[in-house]
Amino acid sequence: MSFTVVPIGHVSKVEETIKIVIDDEFSAGLTHVELFSHVIILWWIDRRDNRADRTTLLTNPPRNKGLTPSGVFACRSPSRPNPIGHTIAAVLRVDHDAGEVYLDHMDADDGTPVLDIKPYMPSSDCVSDARVAPWFETLQRRY
Amino acid sequence: MSFTVVPIGHVSKVEETIKIVIDDEFSAGLTHVELFSHVIILWWIDRRDNRADRTTLLTNPPRNKGLTPSGVFACRSPSRPNPIGHTIAAVLRVDHDAGEVYLDHMDADDGTPVLDIKPYMPSSDCVSDARVAPWFETLQRRY
Repeated sequence: MSFTVVPIGHVSKVEETIKIVIDDEFSAGLTHVELFSHVIILWWIDRRDNRADRTTLLTNPPRNKGLTPSGVFACRSPSRPNPIGHTIAAVLRVDHDAGEVYLDHMDADDGTPVLDIKPYMPSSDCVSDARVAPWFETLQRRY
Repeated sequence: MSFTVVPIGHVSKVEETIKIVIDDEFSAGLTHVELFSHVIILWWIDRRDNRADRTTLLTNPPRNKGLTPSGVFACRSPSRPNPIGHTIAAVLRVDHDAGEVYLDHMDADDGTPVLDIKPYMPSSDCVSDARVAPWFETLQRRY
């Protein structure tokens, strides 16, 4: 069993400007995105869409060297069965005519396919006191 | 251009017990998941994997009746170009032998295909003061 996903657009990074460029056929879907301060971006980790990366189940994340390996479902490794990236970013501006969402940051390269944008909702998406594995405890919060 | 995703397991709901059952070939990927209090679950909204739902770009969310429609990228409608569901849930217990992750809630039906599990990291995933569209402002926080 498998399912098919399609790009709705791509990441654009030109000098300091970071944006998602939505394909014309999907740009109406951006209506009201400007009413949200942050969005969840699901993107395709295209460089890891190969058999070796998609069959990787255990990895040593950079912060977990020397310990027992972590499963890919316990870290954010780009090597995973379905290479779907997940990024939360602040919306700086939405250009509806151009179908563009300007962001404060994006941890994907220029040209990376984007699969979905969802509005960030603290009601369901925010867990301030979530517990993490010890090797992630010292990570600084972005927001 | 399109990409292929595969289920790594499925949602199981039997009476009050909610869990993700990971297929045997992927269950090693759960190593260390028990060290996280919450996970992000990406799942396939299989009931909306059809042409009509996948070409829907504007919708009236329940809380936005009578206003101008929202784009699907400004709401969490299950009708969207790529029907990928996104749920944050608390991990109650991990049974590594059975490949099962017990959860406090899950907004997908029994049998729903699961695409990915990612550990919830407040450092990148939490935005306590995110602004949302007015019709979502009164939503109660789950966590």
